[in-house]
Amino acid sequence: MSIIENDSIIKYKYLSHKCGSNLKCLKHNTEFVLESGEILPEIEIAYTTYGKINDAQSNIVWMCHAFTANADPVDWWPGMVGEGKFFDPSRYFIVCANILGSCYGSTGPLSINQKTGIPYFRNFPQVTVRDQVKAHEILRAHLGIEKIQVLLGCSIGGHQALEWTISNPDLFEHAIYVATNAMNTPWVTAFNESQRLAIQADPSFFEDTPDGGSAGLKAARSIALLSYRTRNAYNETQKESDAEKTDNYKASSYQQYQGDKLVDRFNAYSYFVLSKALDSHNVGRGRGGYKIALSRIKAKSLIISIDSDMLFTTEDQELIHKHIPGSKLQILESFYGHDGFLLEFKKQNEIYNNFLKL
Amino acid sequence: MSIIENDSIIKYKYLSHKCGSNLKCLKHNTEFVLESGEILPEIEIAYTTYGKINDAQSNIVWMCHAFTANADPVDWWPGMVGEGKFFDPSRYFIVCANILGSCYGSTGPLSINQKTGIPYFRNFPQVTVRDQVKAHEILRAHLGIEKIQVLLGCSIGGHQALEWTISNPDLFEHAIYVATNAMNTPWVTAFNESQRLAIQADPSFFEDTPDGGSAGLKAARSIALLSYRTRNAYNETQKESDAEKTDNYKASSYQQYQGDKLVDRFNAYSYFVLSKALDSHNVGRGRGGYKIALSRIKAKSLIISIDSDMLFTTEDQELIHKHIPGSKLQILESFYGHDGFLLEFKKQNEIYNNFLKL
Repeated sequence: MSIIENDSIIKYKYLSHKCGSNLKCLKHNTEFVLESGEILPEIEIAYTTYGKINDAQSNIVWMCHAFTANADPVDWWPGMVGEGKFFDPSRYFIVCANILGSCYGSTGPLSINQKTGIPYFRNFPQVTVRDQVKAHEILRAHLGIEKIQVLLGCSIGGHQALEWTISNPDLFEHAIYVATNAMNTPWVTAFNESQRLAIQADPSFFEDTPDGGSAGLKAARSIALLSYRTRNAYNETQKESDAEKTDNYKASSYQQYQGDKLVDRFNAYSYFVLSKALDSHNVGRGRGGYKIALSRIKAKSLIISIDSDMLFTTEDQELIHKHIPGSKLQILESFYGHDGFLLEFKKQNEIYNNFLKL
Repeated sequence: MSIIENDSIIKYKYLSHKCGSNLKCLKHNTEFVLESGEILPEIEIAYTTYGKINDAQSNIVWMCHAFTANADPVDWWPGMVGEGKFFDPSRYFIVCANILGSCYGSTGPLSINQKTGIPYFRNFPQVTVRDQVKAHEILRAHLGIEKIQVLLGCSIGGHQALEWTISNPDLFEHAIYVATNAMNTPWVTAFNESQRLAIQADPSFFEDTPDGGSAGLKAARSIALLSYRTRNAYNETQKESDAEKTDNYKASSYQQYQGDKLVDRFNAYSYFVLSKALDSHNVGRGRGGYKIALSRIKAKSLIISIDSDMLFTTEDQELIHKHIPGSKLQILESFYGHDGFLLEFKKQNEIYNNFLKL
């Protein structure tokens, strides 16, 4: 294994866009067997750390990022991570690894397939949340971490956090699962399938070029946003002041703008692969069901439910809470829906503070 | 004006698919000025009638169809219309006209543009709900109808019903507005824009052929369904029995299947035009606001709200109820969301019966 310095891994526009100078990359030169049985001949794991590990290893926070985020939590969670913020590098050693299948430095569809000498594109094998957690484990071992004080994951970061606390229960002191669920629901899959249909409606996706499927990705992002927000939030933030117009509504421009923004920083192949990983999330698979799986968790657990989240609902979080021994469930009231975890910093500060000071 | 018999108007696959032998078409050989000021040199209005008008014209029911439906209510509302059903042709004279912009016989994007000799495709002008109602008025005059006993519209059929009872208040005895709203919301526009982005992600849409944009339309239908149903309905009807699988979920197949089904019976150009008409719906436009507009309605009005409808919510219907003088609001409890009007026949029977027997 080797560490590649920042400059050498600026392979794609995605990295230069979104990651600070703190980004490192672990090259794991050994076969990586995926849950499907397929093999990646080697993998790279892009990651960021902030702060220093103390001697007792009692200050380590591991953050698992969501769908289109990256290895730098200061970038995607600026209200929670950084100097003067709740997760302050002067108090904590903070680690975040880009997930397998993404396009921000870890091995994914735009990585070179050694068999062909060109990127995988659509030939990238299926990855699951368990595969992503297996990569986290490799990085953890490499960093010499034996104890994680706080594991935290939001949305599909929460999927990783659940999988990891189930597969390695003794590693964690505390775990915080935000706006997530224990297994995916047909409702979420129907949203994801709609997004994949939009990507596949764009024939350039089948041409396997770095920008393939961009128009489809734009539509996919627009669809996804509908599930990240709420009706009320749309009706307030995109309200029209001109009652006489018959076209060019603000809500339309907003969807287009957000679609373009994602296309500028992500690619359709990674999106497709991660969307499939999301669908396949089920902590109960191969473990005799979700109840048995969740009961294995030993971390002091906090489950945060955003009351207006229509993607991963309070019902989903109540189920997690019911089966993780001794866990706490906290409802976070938000106007914003699923995306509340990216916006409600003050409320999260208070919730995390109350939980971690115990 | 002339009536074209059924055989001569089977121009597209759409007609032969969906309309019974009862379909007629009114050819209106006069310029039709759209709300935008643009002019269609002539229009065709496809329509179906069932039953016979009585001498007093006291048995006329006019049904306004929804987005992708057609002029034949026995086809799209089999539980409510037909022999032995609530709207029985032996009791009522039932009229339904295909809306302008659709592809089931009335003038729309696949109609021949007389200036070019080929179909309009993307050059079809913007139509609004008011334009569609103006076409209904032409058909009504042609049929010699002076009094409509019951006007009924569901979803965007309800938009037409609202517009019509506002623009011609003395024409109607009763009006029933089902799962609809008085003006569109940013939330609905964001859903529609996502669907249009999916259609535009398919470059064949820009090639202007009858099947152009089909892959995009498939995705668009998949998106739309998310708004027509509910989370609970998806989670029950598309539930997985195999907890071990990691791909090929039922919810995915369902979205694909429903997308393909629509592609088989509709086209992307009409879908795009009607989606824009939906966005532009606002009864208050040019009338000093929705309150003044709704207060013009003289029909005995019943507003039906489906409690689980996430597209046109109870809040939307309460607003209509508040401003139509003497109107009644009835909540229809349904597991199915917006599509409840297509499924809850027994409950609707009871509601309509109670309302109309008064």
